Amino acid sequence: MAISAENEHPVKAFGWAARDSSGHLSPFKFSRRATGEKDVTFKVLYCGVCHTDLHTIKNEWGLTSYPAVPGYEIVGVIIEVGTKVTKFKIGDKVGVAGMAGSCCSCANCKNDLENYCPKLVSTYGAKYHDGTTTYGGYSDIMVSNEHFVVKIPDNFPLDGVAPLLCAGITVYSPLKYYGLDKAGMHLGVVGLGGLGHMAVNFAKAMGLKVTIISSSPNKKKEAMNHLGADGFLVSHNTEEMQSAIGIMDGIIDTVSAVHAILPLIDLLKTHGKLVMVGAPEKPLELLAMPLLMGRKIVGGSLVGGVKETQEMINFATKHNIIADIELIPMDYVNTAIERLLKGDVKYRFVIDIANSLKSF
Amino acid sequence: MAISAENEHPVKAFGWAARDSSGHLSPFKFSRRATGEKDVTFKVLYCGVCHTDLHTIKNEWGLTSYPAVPGYEIVGVIIEVGTKVTKFKIGDKVGVAGMAGSCCSCANCKNDLENYCPKLVSTYGAKYHDGTTTYGGYSDIMVSNEHFVVKIPDNFPLDGVAPLLCAGITVYSPLKYYGLDKAGMHLGVVGLGGLGHMAVNFAKAMGLKVTIISSSPNKKKEAMNHLGADGFLVSHNTEEMQSAIGIMDGIIDTVSAVHAILPLIDLLKTHGKLVMVGAPEKPLELLAMPLLMGRKIVGGSLVGGVKETQEMINFATKHNIIADIELIPMDYVNTAIERLLKGDVKYRFVIDIANSLKSF
Repeated sequence: MAISAENEHPVKAFGWAARDSSGHLSPFKFSRRATGEKDVTFKVLYCGVCHTDLHTIKNEWGLTSYPAVPGYEIVGVIIEVGTKVTKFKIGDKVGVAGMAGSCCSCANCKNDLENYCPKLVSTYGAKYHDGTTTYGGYSDIMVSNEHFVVKIPDNFPLDGVAPLLCAGITVYSPLKYYGLDKAGMHLGVVGLGGLGHMAVNFAKAMGLKVTIISSSPNKKKEAMNHLGADGFLVSHNTEEMQSAIGIMDGIIDTVSAVHAILPLIDLLKTHGKLVMVGAPEKPLELLAMPLLMGRKIVGGSLVGGVKETQEMINFATKHNIIADIELIPMDYVNTAIERLLKGDVKYRFVIDIANSLKSF
Repeated sequence: MAISAENEHPVKAFGWAARDSSGHLSPFKFSRRATGEKDVTFKVLYCGVCHTDLHTIKNEWGLTSYPAVPGYEIVGVIIEVGTKVTKFKIGDKVGVAGMAGSCCSCANCKNDLENYCPKLVSTYGAKYHDGTTTYGGYSDIMVSNEHFVVKIPDNFPLDGVAPLLCAGITVYSPLKYYGLDKAGMHLGVVGLGGLGHMAVNFAKAMGLKVTIISSSPNKKKEAMNHLGADGFLVSHNTEEMQSAIGIMDGIIDTVSAVHAILPLIDLLKTHGKLVMVGAPEKPLELLAMPLLMGRKIVGGSLVGGVKETQEMINFATKHNIIADIELIPMDYVNTAIERLLKGDVKYRFVIDIANSLKSF
């Protein structure tokens, strides 16, 4: 008989888990491993609610094993460190993103790109090296190998920092990798949700001109006035889209629903880059000729490695970039998920774990 | 009344033209401009038969104006030079590719990328700066601004050189631009026709390992033995394709029919690049997730600028690269076009213009 989640490890833990594909979360007792020699154990303070959490708890990718404790935009404070830990001490504010482990020996791992390691172990819903299931940040404590932990400066508001660990790095990394980080460039950002609003923040801090492309005209005022976007195009307004043909150096496309990318490719200059960071479940239509005519590319990007995640946190600290959030108590999470499905959040729900997660 | 093609310019010329979308070519009298001060006039010796010629004469892109004299893989010998010509002299062997003119002032033109100039004037079927129609290389003489002319070394076999001017540069340019020119890299080449066989030649000369991906198993023997490919995958053989997942740094996709690109993306390593140089008329299916998972890109590339075309000719000269051709007389062209439609040519038809184009 399999050992229960509550008894497989020595350290008692609790959180909220999905038990099936209904997507409903409920309290869940489980356990965490004892602090290993390279591990840090930290008390979770805040955890962001990411779209990937929704996909996972509803098993939309067919990969979920239940019970599943979501959450990989996790910040907290260290309460114990292993004997061989070198980067952290008790009391440090830290963050953990989507990665609990990787092979540490492939070319990607050696190049600080653990996020592209074929043996990547996700922060939740995966099998860790010891064969036990990983559980995410909708929980009271986390135990992580220090390699996969980043340092958060003490004076940074931790609730607004949590979403940087997924939404933030997801848009920061492609800006750097695809060379869309040069002051004066013109960037398009498709979709103004958790990822999109972070893309605006980072790109503006890098000195770029930023135009939002959104299907929601009612987001325009806030995008311009509050987020400081330089332009706003309504994606179904042909006239507006036509007026912007060939003006952008790159586009970060955060939309994970099926949508038309050819009108976006048309917005690019010669050598322009359309970078997908959302993953629509069904194929999109790609016509080759527009790529040929301007030597344009469509690329992808998936979060970032640990080193780059730390760089992103440091950049955010320097430029005072945090996410715009709505802080919620743990027991509001099911309502939050329903609202997230409708896009009803500016721009990220963050769970106030430490102050609202009650044991039972 | 419009001036006839035969009388609009002072210099008599003749060639073969399509008169309508049937795609049938027949003899055609027209005229060329007198040699301008920056022009060279050359006697056409050979002209390659490119797939684009087929698309154009059948008006498949809806842009053709008739009569249309195709041909932009043109080599010849200079018989007259303008007073301000500095690069060439009478007797020089030269080539002209797809470009008759460009704006010469946009960012692309200033960066030697005339091929991406929005005001590019094609070698045939376009309006030149003087308002007259351009006619291609299925003709006895050409007049070209020297900027758009490349030098062919004297000791190079001109019939085999002609296809370099389109097929050659079309695959050479993306190998350079996308960084797929480093010795030891593994390149996939999709489609083994005029473009594909040139891609193999260039990539092998650059020191790459080359695997052909083709729908025709019967091309394998020659690809391996004659062209020197290192591997051959039959695109509809799932087992063969599965065996090659994640092994290629890049792929040059020369196929202009609608085809599946997702199995090709799967062949790429992390950061791999799928470069389309063919342009299927209908959209292809692109799933975003495989791009995200490996930070892969799908890009396009369209021939090359004049400077790079000259570099390509010089590279080909150094490495003794010419196209494998079937030399045909002018009056065989309609049969050649039928055979080309069936893929029945190894690997490029070249018309022996000087020895077979008869005036009438």
